[in-house]
Amino acid sequence: MKTNAGRFFEDYRVGQVIDHAVPRTISGGERALYHALYPARGALYSSDAFARACGLAASPVDDLVAFHVVFGKTVPDISINAVANLGYAEGRWRKPVWPGDTLRARSEVIGVKENSNGTSGVVWVRSQGIDQTGETVMDYVRWVMVRKRDAASPAPEPVVPQLAPAVAAADLAIPAGLDFTGYDFTLAGEPHRWGDYAVGEVIDHVDGVTIEEAEHMLATRLWQNTAKVHFDATFREDGKRLIYGGHVISMARALSFNGLANAQMIVALNGGAHANPCFAGDTVKAWSEVLDKAPTAAPGVGAIRLRLVAVKAGAGDPLTLKEGGKYAPHVLLDLDYWALMPL
Amino acid sequence: MKTNAGRFFEDYRVGQVIDHAVPRTISGGERALYHALYPARGALYSSDAFARACGLAASPVDDLVAFHVVFGKTVPDISINAVANLGYAEGRWRKPVWPGDTLRARSEVIGVKENSNGTSGVVWVRSQGIDQTGETVMDYVRWVMVRKRDAASPAPEPVVPQLAPAVAAADLAIPAGLDFTGYDFTLAGEPHRWGDYAVGEVIDHVDGVTIEEAEHMLATRLWQNTAKVHFDATFREDGKRLIYGGHVISMARALSFNGLANAQMIVALNGGAHANPCFAGDTVKAWSEVLDKAPTAAPGVGAIRLRLVAVKAGAGDPLTLKEGGKYAPHVLLDLDYWALMPL
Amino acid sequence: MKTNAGRFFEDYRVGQVIDHAVPRTISGGERALYHALYPARGALYSSDAFARACGLAASPVDDLVAFHVVFGKTVPDISINAVANLGYAEGRWRKPVWPGDTLRARSEVIGVKENSNGTSGVVWVRSQGIDQTGETVMDYVRWVMVRKRDAASPAPEPVVPQLAPAVAAADLAIPAGLDFTGYDFTLAGEPHRWGDYAVGEVIDHVDGVTIEEAEHMLATRLWQNTAKVHFDATFREDGKRLIYGGHVISMARALSFNGLANAQMIVALNGGAHANPCFAGDTVKAWSEVLDKAPTAAPGVGAIRLRLVAVKAGAGDPLTLKEGGKYAPHVLLDLDYWALMPL
Repeated sequence: MKTNAGRFFEDYRVGQVIDHAVPRTISGGERALYHALYPARGALYSSDAFARACGLAASPVDDLVAFHVVFGKTVPDISINAVANLGYAEGRWRKPVWPGDTLRARSEVIGVKENSNGTSGVVWVRSQGIDQTGETVMDYVRWVMVRKRDAASPAPEPVVPQLAPAVAAADLAIPAGLDFTGYDFTLAGEPHRWGDYAVGEVIDHVDGVTIEEAEHMLATRLWQNTAKVHFDATFREDGKRLIYGGHVISMARALSFNGLANAQMIVALNGGAHANPCFAGDTVKAWSEVLDKAPTAAPGVGAIRLRLVAVKAGAGDPLTLKEGGKYAPHVLLDLDYWALMPL
Repeated sequence: MKTNAGRFFEDYRVGQVIDHAVPRTISGGERALYHALYPARGALYSSDAFARACGLAASPVDDLVAFHVVFGKTVPDISINAVANLGYAEGRWRKPVWPGDTLRARSEVIGVKENSNGTSGVVWVRSQGIDQTGETVMDYVRWVMVRKRDAASPAPEPVVPQLAPAVAAADLAIPAGLDFTGYDFTLAGEPHRWGDYAVGEVIDHVDGVTIEEAEHMLATRLWQNTAKVHFDATFREDGKRLIYGGHVISMARALSFNGLANAQMIVALNGGAHANPCFAGDTVKAWSEVLDKAPTAAPGVGAIRLRLVAVKAGAGDPLTLKEGGKYAPHVLLDLDYWALMPL
Repeated sequence: MKTNAGRFFEDYRVGQVIDHAVPRTISGGERALYHALYPARGALYSSDAFARACGLAASPVDDLVAFHVVFGKTVPDISINAVANLGYAEGRWRKPVWPGDTLRARSEVIGVKENSNGTSGVVWVRSQGIDQTGETVMDYVRWVMVRKRDAASPAPEPVVPQLAPAVAAADLAIPAGLDFTGYDFTLAGEPHRWGDYAVGEVIDHVDGVTIEEAEHMLATRLWQNTAKVHFDATFREDGKRLIYGGHVISMARALSFNGLANAQMIVALNGGAHANPCFAGDTVKAWSEVLDKAPTAAPGVGAIRLRLVAVKAGAGDPLTLKEGGKYAPHVLLDLDYWALMPL
């Protein structure tokens, strides 16, 4: 049997390190596709000239590209037999990715806990993207529920990692050279500075995008994410293709430009839930809430912690996140991240 | 309120200059996407070797890319509250755009005139694309009908700019170094020279393309054009997404290869009307009429003025442009431009 | 009449050489699009670092890109009036294609034979792709059935070329510098070496992809293949757009990663049949059979001859190729090729 059936719950043990396959060189092609797939307009990620005026060598690719590439590479080893993607924590972007960089991915198993039903368990991994120089460009913890190969196999000693509820502001990695003191708010698209946002403030991003099968498949393949459920209409009983959760993340993040145009760089992923599945035909809208703010050591640069919520348009009150303790059916995404803004 | 509600009619005054947001660096990715989205085959825009043989440093991106990028950037400032895109005039391409160039956009308001109903008015702007060296790569006049914020606000002094019915042949900007004396008609795809076209001649471009939602959205996002009506199926009462008029322009222009393969470079936009809306499922076909011809000072290079008409296949006689003084319902586009051809 | 009506059967004569139009410079944009359109994961075609470790200067574009570019350019001259694409033979990839290369295409007519019905005939051509240095990057024989312009025109002297049933292993072109002695099986995604495959072995590639109209049209346009039947829903009586056979080839090849991740480079096309048409909505699955194996002179490199079969999921037993001597209706593709694998 030469095809990869993937790992089952009993194949993971704490401390195990998995080097994921298929390294990837990023080019301007990936950036152009990112802009075609999402309404991304962050000036720092669109213009070399703007990025240089902010102290970077050139315009990097959108921060979520690194996340998607790493995530995609982990799929065959981590989530091919997953029942559910349960959460994210402690994600940090450590350096930007530019066209020409080559990324590979590695995961370490940091927790395992069998479910009481004996047929599945939860696996925690810390995954990292590594560039051609051997440096980590980003890392994050993800935990997934994975089927057991054999219900009769014994449960491992449970290890549940202690995860930070959010990355501490002091731990945020600021890209080398970043300087927002000469930031051009006109070219960036909005006048709102870090000081203009108040904790607790909610921003309705107004715009919406109706999703097509061709688009989410193009995106998901671009990140070499091969989970069958995204591509094969014969795979699920209902004939639907489940949209990769990361597609919704990038769509919501791009929509958040309208009101958060200056929340330029994502530097941490504190947590996130794919509240409900998304399917082609859904219209995605988004709103954000300011959760926290912190200064940074970089000139002119402040950090802002944001909750980003994606909802299906026309399917319920956008601001109602939960009903009876559970996510309401129209909620697609509830994400918590840190971004960098000009002071 | 941090999201951009856009300008209303009373926010424009003649002489006002608006610097548009989100500069954009173009790469080979945009060119590849352009070729995937449209059946574009102009050899000068496909091959570095062919472009060099014509005196250029390398193959530029299709001229319409510059138009789309500039147009897209103007949308949040000019047409987000527009009721209709009324026309174009005096468009000139002043230098080609190559991968690596960064474009930004600026508009000057050159006319305002309130409508007699008192609820909207017409705004004329001259928009230009500016590259990283500060040089203008193209500019054009566009006029749009924009809603008033408040019907009670007083009408401004009307200013209606005098616009040329067409760019004069003597005013066409010929790219530096362009030389068609060694032009390879075999590699270009057709033997027809400038001298082979007669004023009044009509060319049926034969091919047709049926448009998909995913394709027009990919294209429109690529130009960072964010008008809701193109993306959000919940925005219009009929649940349809209106296709960006520029998508039809590029589609029709690409289809015109078949019969006009040697009308290589677009150098002027004399005028244009988006005669009727286009929706996914429509099959676009095109025909051209030769309106004028003129020599140029560049070696081996002639100018040809063309009317490019796009129609919906199967919806009416393609050659019938107007019925009762109005565009017939199957007509999508009526464009008037100058192109450069080998003598 | 300025549009190209294409050649008819009586326009071909043995020995005729046709230089095809529209040379094409490849960039990272084409590679990114290839990865977005197909679930391609060959490490050699994804990572510059991996390619360098295998002795190449950088990561080339997928071998099938060269095939598609050459094929696309031949369409206006060879198959625009074709009734059927009958077969391929003697295809050889002679050197990899890297971003920055410019390809043009040339065909020589090597056979003609009128059909007994007198209304059409078969034309054999040997087509080659030529890069900017004048070197051949690949060539292959294709034969098509082409309509006659006039049934009354006399039949030519029939010439039927002798074609090899398969490219001999000794005739495979191994890319200069290729060295698999330091091949990283972990990064490549599978542990299976050349020695692990047995002639007669069948591999079910497990994954499936449901095809969308937007995707096959993006792909086909990217290769500047302009056959109307792929794009125009008003062209066929049934309103369907026929999917370019090469789209199925690339899809099946990409799906074959799962089980053949180390069959990295395609070096020969021995034969192939587009057994049945493919339409949007079809879910493509694939299986391979090992037909032959041979050593090569390059360090650590073996050659493997594979049959690659694409089928429609859910439409019949995937392994049943033929029924009553004809391809079963669920079979889309039956391809025979040589690839290079680490020993």
